[in-house]
Parts: sequence; structure tokens; C-alpha cells
Amino acid sequence: MENILILGGDGYLGWPSAMFFSNKRYKVTVVDNYLRRDICKKLDISMLYNVPNLIERARIWHKLTGLEIKVAIGDLQDSEFVRSLFNGTVKYDWAASKEYAGLPDTVIHFAEMPSAPYSMMDYRTANLTISNNLIVTNNLMYAVKDFSVETHIVKLGTMGEYGTPNIDIEEGWLEIEHNGRKDKFIYPRQAGSIYHTTKIMDTDLLWFGVRTWGLKVTDLMQGPVYGIETEESKIDERLKTIFNYDEIFGTVINRFLVQAVAGYPLTVYGAGGQTRGYININDTIQCIYLSIKNPPAEGELNIYNQFTETFTVKELAEQIQSIAIKLGYDCNISLIKNPRKELENHYYNVNHKSLLGLGLKPHYLTEKVLKGMFKFVGKFKENIKKDIIFKGVKW
Amino acid sequence: MENILILGGDGYLGWPSAMFFSNKRYKVTVVDNYLRRDICKKLDISMLYNVPNLIERARIWHKLTGLEIKVAIGDLQDSEFVRSLFNGTVKYDWAASKEYAGLPDTVIHFAEMPSAPYSMMDYRTANLTISNNLIVTNNLMYAVKDFSVETHIVKLGTMGEYGTPNIDIEEGWLEIEHNGRKDKFIYPRQAGSIYHTTKIMDTDLLWFGVRTWGLKVTDLMQGPVYGIETEESKIDERLKTIFNYDEIFGTVINRFLVQAVAGYPLTVYGAGGQTRGYININDTIQCIYLSIKNPPAEGELNIYNQFTETFTVKELAEQIQSIAIKLGYDCNISLIKNPRKELENHYYNVNHKSLLGLGLKPHYLTEKVLKGMFKFVGKFKENIKKDIIFKGVKW
Repeated sequence: MENILILGGDGYLGWPSAMFFSNKRYKVTVVDNYLRRDICKKLDISMLYNVPNLIERARIWHKLTGLEIKVAIGDLQDSEFVRSLFNGTVKYDWAASKEYAGLPDTVIHFAEMPSAPYSMMDYRTANLTISNNLIVTNNLMYAVKDFSVETHIVKLGTMGEYGTPNIDIEEGWLEIEHNGRKDKFIYPRQAGSIYHTTKIMDTDLLWFGVRTWGLKVTDLMQGPVYGIETEESKIDERLKTIFNYDEIFGTVINRFLVQAVAGYPLTVYGAGGQTRGYININDTIQCIYLSIKNPPAEGELNIYNQFTETFTVKELAEQIQSIAIKLGYDCNISLIKNPRKELENHYYNVNHKSLLGLGLKPHYLTEKVLKGMFKFVGKFKENIKKDIIFKGVKW
Repeated sequence: MENILILGGDGYLGWPSAMFFSNKRYKVTVVDNYLRRDICKKLDISMLYNVPNLIERARIWHKLTGLEIKVAIGDLQDSEFVRSLFNGTVKYDWAASKEYAGLPDTVIHFAEMPSAPYSMMDYRTANLTISNNLIVTNNLMYAVKDFSVETHIVKLGTMGEYGTPNIDIEEGWLEIEHNGRKDKFIYPRQAGSIYHTTKIMDTDLLWFGVRTWGLKVTDLMQGPVYGIETEESKIDERLKTIFNYDEIFGTVINRFLVQAVAGYPLTVYGAGGQTRGYININDTIQCIYLSIKNPPAEGELNIYNQFTETFTVKELAEQIQSIAIKLGYDCNISLIKNPRKELENHYYNVNHKSLLGLGLKPHYLTEKVLKGMFKFVGKFKENIKKDIIFKGVKW
């Protein structure tokens, strides 16, 4: 039975991934320190609905399916805690059997502070983002090097690392010819926030580990994710993933949907020409599964651009507006002064063939998908707090 | 009177720079937390001779020259301490006048853990290197952004950030043509240690600040520095800079000299074909001075490759050996198995015209310079501890 360790298992993508792999009969351990929930509490940001904590969810999952997801609660910035997951001394906070899970075949590393606006609030949140994201990654890298060099690390990167260059964006690498000589490099990156910059840095770090110690790493350059339900979350209401709709943690499609349901104008920054690649949460999980099924060789770094279609922000707003209106919602689009430093019109042509080549079957942002999300969000309309949607973090 | 803040003012380059600018009648403040001295103590590494602490040195400097170098002792990982240097609340640990120095026109940022082998000892030293180097840089960047956006940040980078690519190394930037379109990027980097990787990361961070907030930054991509005396250190024996000759903190030329004086074979790693660019400590100071005299415009990042000549490690060993023998030392070269992961033979062609263009007058590694260093080191022959020269840190 393959063994998977999921860091950041309480998160928007972490928990659905845990259930997916558990359902496929992988041996799954999840780790989290509730950083996201704590930040939300501190900033007075509520989610669309309450979600049981990780221990409770693992218990419910076990009761309903008979399957075990072991849980360890702790801060992965603590090196000794990370090492305990690899040397067998970890104490699980919940498990059907307290026996050590064993060395993981794969680690899925979601354990990063994932919000660009949070990282841009002030020097404190910037420092927290840098420390958390880099020290966790370094602790993981060293634990794998020291205890389990065969383990495949799947790290979530972001398309935002590339920024918006004036040339085609390739999948992670670029062959450069200069003065008649050639070499292949990591594709040049320049990101639009401190958060995105830490993702460039953690790639630098893992790429060092790959070159130096022969580690096996996959870096998934993911676009903004949308969606709520997965096959496993449908088993029980309490197994839904967390869902933010605020400016700090809510990804744009999810946020626009909630805004439409709440009758709050869809807020487009600047001219709205910012083009990005988007992906459905079910495809995220599919991509991770495909990456695990096709691991890199020793000393190899696989980099995949993980999204299925591109839209400008204005296109997204218009698409969501048109469906909202069909469903009887009163929905306006409001162009506001861009609080971010970013190009509002730019070249954007991205290669993203690899995951399709591995067999990815995309779920596109169709009317049906959007209507399904509207229906889901609509059930929680009463919970929506309009005042948390836009906080105006500037950079 | 121009105002300079030097972070890492106790270091090998920090203190000579402080005296240089003070001598030129700049208003100088130095900050340090003695991290390097503390690590040396912990690892039982002694320097070639004892050096008074920073407060004592500033006091001696003031007594002998009448000039003031203000001193603040503290950890720059502490954001509030960094901000106190910019908002006027700093308490100096030594100053002729306790009055606030005012906002700096220039900050010279030496305050990083500078050793590749130290960063590679284990996960703890790797974490310390990452946290120290990135949090200090981020605290500085935010303090400048929040209080003093006109301040020019001069950051010491390293040639090691480039690694050894198979194409010519340009000065910081590379214009790339791809599929018929063009853009200009930070030159692609891949370093050979965790330490060098943190220097790539701090460039990413400052380049973000330059693009986003219009900061003015100069990044000096420096090769290994050698040398001891500067004009100002000659004023008094007690004003000499710190001098390490161990594998952890001793740069290769300094270390080889001490090895030759001590009758310890010059240890060349592997085939010794590793080519690097080297620079005399006096030229380092000259380069910093030229960078300050030619600051970047708002929102501009100047990157200069800071070295004057290139050698293979084997060439260096042979040059030092030949002079050692002339001076009557018994000097052998010992080729040892390379403890590092690096190419021992590689292409290396580096553009370093900019600083020459600004007026740099190089001090080359001549027989005269080496003989002067031999004479200097010879005075401290009795202090040399052979057992600290090689510790065998592997990666």
C-alpha cells in the first residue's frame, strides 16, 4: 500500500486530497497547525460555513468509510517535529492505530501561507510568510535527504511565479542560446507579491536539493483554483473543504460567486485585462495523482504548469454575471482602482501540455459547473458577511 | 554630510568599510549582533588574532581620529530594532553624541551569514542561514519602504549565485529572445550551497521591492575577497579587521596563506579546476564607494560583477606555493577528494566591465601583494591552530 504524507492537510486542497488518496486505499497521514484558521480568526474573516477541525474530520471519515487518515497537529517550522514524521517518533493526535505510518513514498507539500494579499499587509505578515514557507520547505527537504532520499516531494508552486513576461512561458525550463553557446535553466521568474516570491525561493531551495543530493521533486505551477465539491466530499456534509470568499484567502472565481449571490458588485481591479490560468479543484487533485503516478527519477525536478484554461478577470466577471442574471440574481460589475502593482494588459501565452500528456481530463468552467457552484453557495447565503469581501490591501 | 548605515559592521568587510567612510567624513553608524564571533566560539574556531569588539573599536577610532562611528548592537532579525534605526528611537551602545544619526542616504547591507560550509553543516545551520539572511533583508527592505524610500541599499551579493553555466555570465541581466519575442530578465542563477541560494533569494526579494515600491538598490556580485590591511587599519594595530583562516569562514586565498605559513599542505579540492573571480579587500571598498557615488534611479536595480581577476584553485595554490618557497617556507600542495558538489572543470567567461567603467583601479594579486600578506600573517604564526583549518564539511 503506498504511503502518502500530506503537509497542510487541513487546507482548501489538503483535505480533499487526503480523502481522495485514502479512498484509493493509499495510507494517508495529514499534518497541519491550523495557521490559516488562526489567521482568519485574527483578521475576523469567517468562512462560508463552519468546518470541523482536522481530527474531527478524520474521525468522521473513519466512521463513514472505515478508512484511516492519521493526523498530527504541529508546526512544521519546528525541525524536530518534521523529523519525527520520518524517524518514527511522531505522536499522532488522531489515528485508528497509533503505530508509525512508516516512511512516505510521497510527500505532498501544501504547508505554505498561500495568500498574496496577506503577505502584503505589512512587514510582520511578510516575515511570517517568508519564514513559514521557507523554513517548512527546508525542514522537509533535509528530513527527506537525511531519512528517506527515495521519497518523492510534490510541491505546490504557482503560475504567479512567472509573472507576465513578454515571451512565451514554458513549463519550468528554458533553453537559452547566448553568444553562440547554450544551456538550460529554470525559466526566469519575477512575481507580483511577497507570497509569490517565496514560491520562487522554495523552488530555488528544492532545485538545490535535487542537484546536490539527488532528490526527486515535482513542482506544480498552479493557477488559481475554484470549486467546492469532490467525489469524497459528497459522502457527508461535514466533509466539505474550507471555503473562503474574502479578499485575503478567497480565490477570484470562488469570491465572485459569493459576491454575486450576496448582491455585492463583482470587483474588477483596474481594466481587468489581467490574464491567468485557472483550474477546477477536481483537476488539481487529478494533476497531483498524475504527478505521483509519474514520479521524477533520482536527481530530477519535474515542473508542470497546472491549469486548464485562461481568462481575463473581466471575462470571468462577465461570465459569472451572465449566469447570475439567468438565475435571478441582481449582479453588477464594478471596476475599481487597482490596489495591486500589476500589468492590466499583457502578453500571456503559456505552455501547459505536460499534464494533458499524462492523461489529465479537464473539467472546464462551463455554465453547468458555475450553476452547480451557485446552487451550493446559495445554501449558505445567510452566512455571507459583505464587510469581509474587500479589505483593500494595497501594494 | 552624507549619512551611511552599515549593517554587519563588525565583519571582515564591515569594519574596514566603516573606517573608510568615516575617514572620508561620512556620518557612519554600524550595527551588528556578533553572529560570526558567536558561531566561531561555538565551533571552537579561533581567528588569527584577537580583535576588540565593535564598541571598543569605535572608541579607539574616535580617540585616534576624533571621528565618530556610532554603534548599535542588536539582532536585525528583530523588525522593531531595524525600524528603530529609521524612526529615530534607536539607543546607541556607543556614540560620541547620543543624538539620532538621522535617516541614512545609503545602507550597506553586509549583515548576512556568509559561509557556504557553515550553511551546509546540517538542517539547523541551514535554517539559521535562511532565516537570518532573508528576514534581515526583508526587515531592511520594509524599513526603507516605510520610512526612507530615497535611501540607496547596497547589498553584497556573490558571484556564486550564478554557478557555472555553459554560457557567458553577464552583469546581472540577460536579454532573452524566445519564439520571436524578447524580454530582459535577471540572469538565471543556480548556486552551489544553501548560503549562496539565500543570496539568490535576497536578490529576488529586493528586486521585488525595486519593481513594486521604486526602491533604489545596488547588488554587488562579489567574488571571494582576500587581504587584510587597508589605509585606515594601518593607523593602529587594534583597528585590523577580523581574519579567519579556517574552512568555515576563511576565504581561500587567506586560508592558503595561513596554511603555507603554518607548514600545512595547501588543500585543493578535486582536480582544482574550479575557476572563480577574486578581489582584494581594498578593491571591495573601492567598488562600494563607486556604487554609492553612482546610485541607481528610483525603481532601478544596479547589478555589478565585483572581482578583478579569475584563477583556478590550482593556479592559486601554485602561485602561493611558489612565493612561500621563495620566502623559505616548506610548502606542499595536497589534492584531496572534493567534499563539495561542484564542477571541477567548467566554462567560465564573466563580464565585469561595469565597475571598471565607473573608475575601479584594481589591485591585482601580485607577488608584492602576496609577500606583504605573508609578512603580516607571519607575525601571528604562533597563533595558528592547524586542527581548525580543515573540518571536512561535506555536501
